[in-house]
Amino acid sequence: MNYLTKTLSGAAMLLPAAALAQQQKPNIIFFLVDDMGWLDSSVQYGDRMYPLNHRYHTPNMQKLAEKGTILCNAYACPVSSPTRTSLMSGMNAAHSGITDFTTAVPGVPSDASHEPDALKDDVLIHPDWNWNGISPSAGVPHTVQVTPMTQLLKDDGYYTIHVGKGHWAAAGTPAASPYNLGFCVNVAGQVAGKPQSYYGEENYGNTKDKWSTFSTMNLTEYYGTNTHLTEALTLEALKTLDYPIKNNLPFYLYMAHHGVHTPITPDPRFVQRYLDAGLDNGQANYASLVEGVDKSLGDIMNFLDKKGIADNTIIIFLADNGGNSENKSKGGILHTQNEPLREGKASCYEGGIKVPMMVYWPGKTSAGARVNTPVIAEDLYPTILDMAGIKDYKTIQDVDGLSLVNLITDGSSDIDPDRELVFHFPHQWKPYPLEDIDYMTSMRKGDWKIVYRHRTQKLELYNLKKDISERNDVASSNKKKLKEMATILSDKLRKWNSPMPSLRNNGKQIPYPDELI
Amino acid sequence: MNYLTKTLSGAAMLLPAAALAQQQKPNIIFFLVDDMGWLDSSVQYGDRMYPLNHRYHTPNMQKLAEKGTILCNAYACPVSSPTRTSLMSGMNAAHSGITDFTTAVPGVPSDASHEPDALKDDVLIHPDWNWNGISPSAGVPHTVQVTPMTQLLKDDGYYTIHVGKGHWAAAGTPAASPYNLGFCVNVAGQVAGKPQSYYGEENYGNTKDKWSTFSTMNLTEYYGTNTHLTEALTLEALKTLDYPIKNNLPFYLYMAHHGVHTPITPDPRFVQRYLDAGLDNGQANYASLVEGVDKSLGDIMNFLDKKGIADNTIIIFLADNGGNSENKSKGGILHTQNEPLREGKASCYEGGIKVPMMVYWPGKTSAGARVNTPVIAEDLYPTILDMAGIKDYKTIQDVDGLSLVNLITDGSSDIDPDRELVFHFPHQWKPYPLEDIDYMTSMRKGDWKIVYRHRTQKLELYNLKKDISERNDVASSNKKKLKEMATILSDKLRKWNSPMPSLRNNGKQIPYPDELI
Repeated sequence: MNYLTKTLSGAAMLLPAAALAQQQKPNIIFFLVDDMGWLDSSVQYGDRMYPLNHRYHTPNMQKLAEKGTILCNAYACPVSSPTRTSLMSGMNAAHSGITDFTTAVPGVPSDASHEPDALKDDVLIHPDWNWNGISPSAGVPHTVQVTPMTQLLKDDGYYTIHVGKGHWAAAGTPAASPYNLGFCVNVAGQVAGKPQSYYGEENYGNTKDKWSTFSTMNLTEYYGTNTHLTEALTLEALKTLDYPIKNNLPFYLYMAHHGVHTPITPDPRFVQRYLDAGLDNGQANYASLVEGVDKSLGDIMNFLDKKGIADNTIIIFLADNGGNSENKSKGGILHTQNEPLREGKASCYEGGIKVPMMVYWPGKTSAGARVNTPVIAEDLYPTILDMAGIKDYKTIQDVDGLSLVNLITDGSSDIDPDRELVFHFPHQWKPYPLEDIDYMTSMRKGDWKIVYRHRTQKLELYNLKKDISERNDVASSNKKKLKEMATILSDKLRKWNSPMPSLRNNGKQIPYPDELI
Repeated sequence: MNYLTKTLSGAAMLLPAAALAQQQKPNIIFFLVDDMGWLDSSVQYGDRMYPLNHRYHTPNMQKLAEKGTILCNAYACPVSSPTRTSLMSGMNAAHSGITDFTTAVPGVPSDASHEPDALKDDVLIHPDWNWNGISPSAGVPHTVQVTPMTQLLKDDGYYTIHVGKGHWAAAGTPAASPYNLGFCVNVAGQVAGKPQSYYGEENYGNTKDKWSTFSTMNLTEYYGTNTHLTEALTLEALKTLDYPIKNNLPFYLYMAHHGVHTPITPDPRFVQRYLDAGLDNGQANYASLVEGVDKSLGDIMNFLDKKGIADNTIIIFLADNGGNSENKSKGGILHTQNEPLREGKASCYEGGIKVPMMVYWPGKTSAGARVNTPVIAEDLYPTILDMAGIKDYKTIQDVDGLSLVNLITDGSSDIDPDRELVFHFPHQWKPYPLEDIDYMTSMRKGDWKIVYRHRTQKLELYNLKKDISERNDVASSNKKKLKEMATILSDKLRKWNSPMPSLRNNGKQIPYPDELI
């Protein structure tokens, strides 16, 4: 033991663990975009640039891509809450039973499957599921109890900050508040799944005519100003970093933008570029929301540089599900807005689950690296704890995700590229049935993907390497592969006791995939 | 320099200032109650127990009084925002020009003086004033720019927490957010001056029929539960202390309850006691709100004990103005609810400005000590910084308050008991005129008090030692004292360029008090 070590040890007894460790601990910024599709930036995630990539002006995402590692085959759940709760729990949604979005109204499930006045599916009845989301404590009905990732970070001394959208749990339950999930600081985060308005002029929805439980809170300072919601959340995020930076506390910033979720309204700062390029109003409005989020990313990166902490700050970029393909306000033609991917948000086809993802870890990731191994949202739970150097932690839940640290940093992966990734949506998404979106389960394993359509109880098989658009169902000509995939998927669903719909005509649960072969 | 000192110094270069200093820095809890009158607890602030004192069951306030120092002659401003901004600025309200409550709607002053459809005073026109409150930055119209006390605390390493009511500034201005005033953490604090509902069952006002900009934010986890607002804010406050306690960071908790402001609705946990005692519904409901706040104080004290930090935590107890005497929902007889004090909230008579105040500083204050020297809200700015050991700080504003540390700790005061304290309310409080409340200025100096009634342009003089109820105007028999008091008061108002009303018949500003003699 040399003198310096001894000196530090002597002082250590009097001094906070968080402070002592800060020289080693990296800061972590999780930059999460809402409803942003895989093609919705100029960053090339696929094997080529697709037409949609050329539509978007996202220089800061581009910059991050050039500095960091692109995860070319990153996946999330088909809708918001399942992904967000996977991040906090490390559990696959089919395992946690949080398979649709959590409710904003206590005691009332919010997914369309439960809506009494919805046009229902003729064939299926929705299953019971954990529509109250995650819970840090036991005994909360319709929740899964978990040890939140942020709680472990905070317990380790991380100054944990939540900015933006929560959507982990129902109103009236503990996880409705970020303060119960291990966050030290919360700006605006609660149960809402979307903003009521992006405009400061409309108080972000907090006016007599616009208000709903979806209205974003805590931004009163911008009321009546022309500050866009994306800008306001960014400014708030940077403010919250003041204390940990000054006091040398490692921080975790969960920067969860509402952008680019509906309402698809123009961001006046950016929309003209897209109108000039000949896009229709909806397309231009959407692209302007994307560019607003891009600016936010740039502002954060510039801030890190200015504060001299960029070299010790990891940035993780992710979207929470695929782009919305079932909303006319986005312009274009419905169900084609993620081409070449099939369908969009809420579907278990690639358009609903394949998401943009990048990681920049200064000194660890290689500039411009591309990783093709498929990864999934729940991997970020162990990954972030690994990044923070937190080992041997205890969790109430069984974590399904795997640490991506080696994969991201040196590419010599301990992650099997043939690992199976499960997507499960046993619900009707909207108050009216949607053929290629509702009631589906799918699983990717290597280049193969099985799709289970609950309504028809048919299995499909795609080879994603040859058929990224899932247009060529090869189930009938690959019986062995289909059976192998069906068996693996069924074993998972049984083991996890995943919510499964029932048949309307006899009340019985639909068969597991392997029972169809 | 001994070995230990040397060791610490060696390590100090690597370690945060906040952490190093924590052994010396006390934690500070500012427990602020809204609209609680001087008589509204079992704590004896006066020279005797008055009938009202016997009404209330407040064992925890009693306990704090027995451990700490009672400030028997503590004053605040007649309404909320002026007091709250005085705490943050150290300025007297007549100096800051924030003389009424700040608005919740951008660009629209909220005081009744400005309401277009209010029944106006026949004689007077309200002055211009800083109805947008304080601002941490320059150039915001109708604000006074200040260095917030909490900014200095945060800059010194304090982990600064805001829980509850803000009400420092208008929506659409920077100080609408506690994050712009040097707070690290904010729970629920914004521009609202009152809660829309105390009930979790009513989502604290966040329902379609109840919502307004007054609805308390950030408590979604309690929606639909039977958690009273006072309880919810207390639970939230204790949660936020987790991080600073674990990481040995000194904290400042601004625990600003909405209780016991209107709406005066029953706290079901406590109301029966008061109904059984024969109080009317309004009185019982109000007393139940007080007892809810008392429980909160007790819960916080118990928490400090349990965490082993009670010995290093200062508790400051204060109300923001006198008890409301102009609201029928409180029961009893209007304008008598602070007896023996005259009038109540918004008045510059004692009932509007005399407030309960206690300070407990373990090892520094003496158990059961009573201090009679008059003190005022703005004193808490330099007092708290003094408690935190922050010296030679720079402020944009001129601070009027004086540190009470010596007064509180050893009674051998450097505060002149004859110091003049000014109260200024050049406004109409309600949409209808109120004789003994609207348009008044008063000043206490020693035992004497001058009252200036703007409407009649008459001066009154009271000897508070003999006449705590201000019923015996001795102006005509004490001309010399009256003149002395009028001169001092007028000099202050002129020096501060305090907002003064004008006469409706000629548009001219009303005379200063000394011009009437």
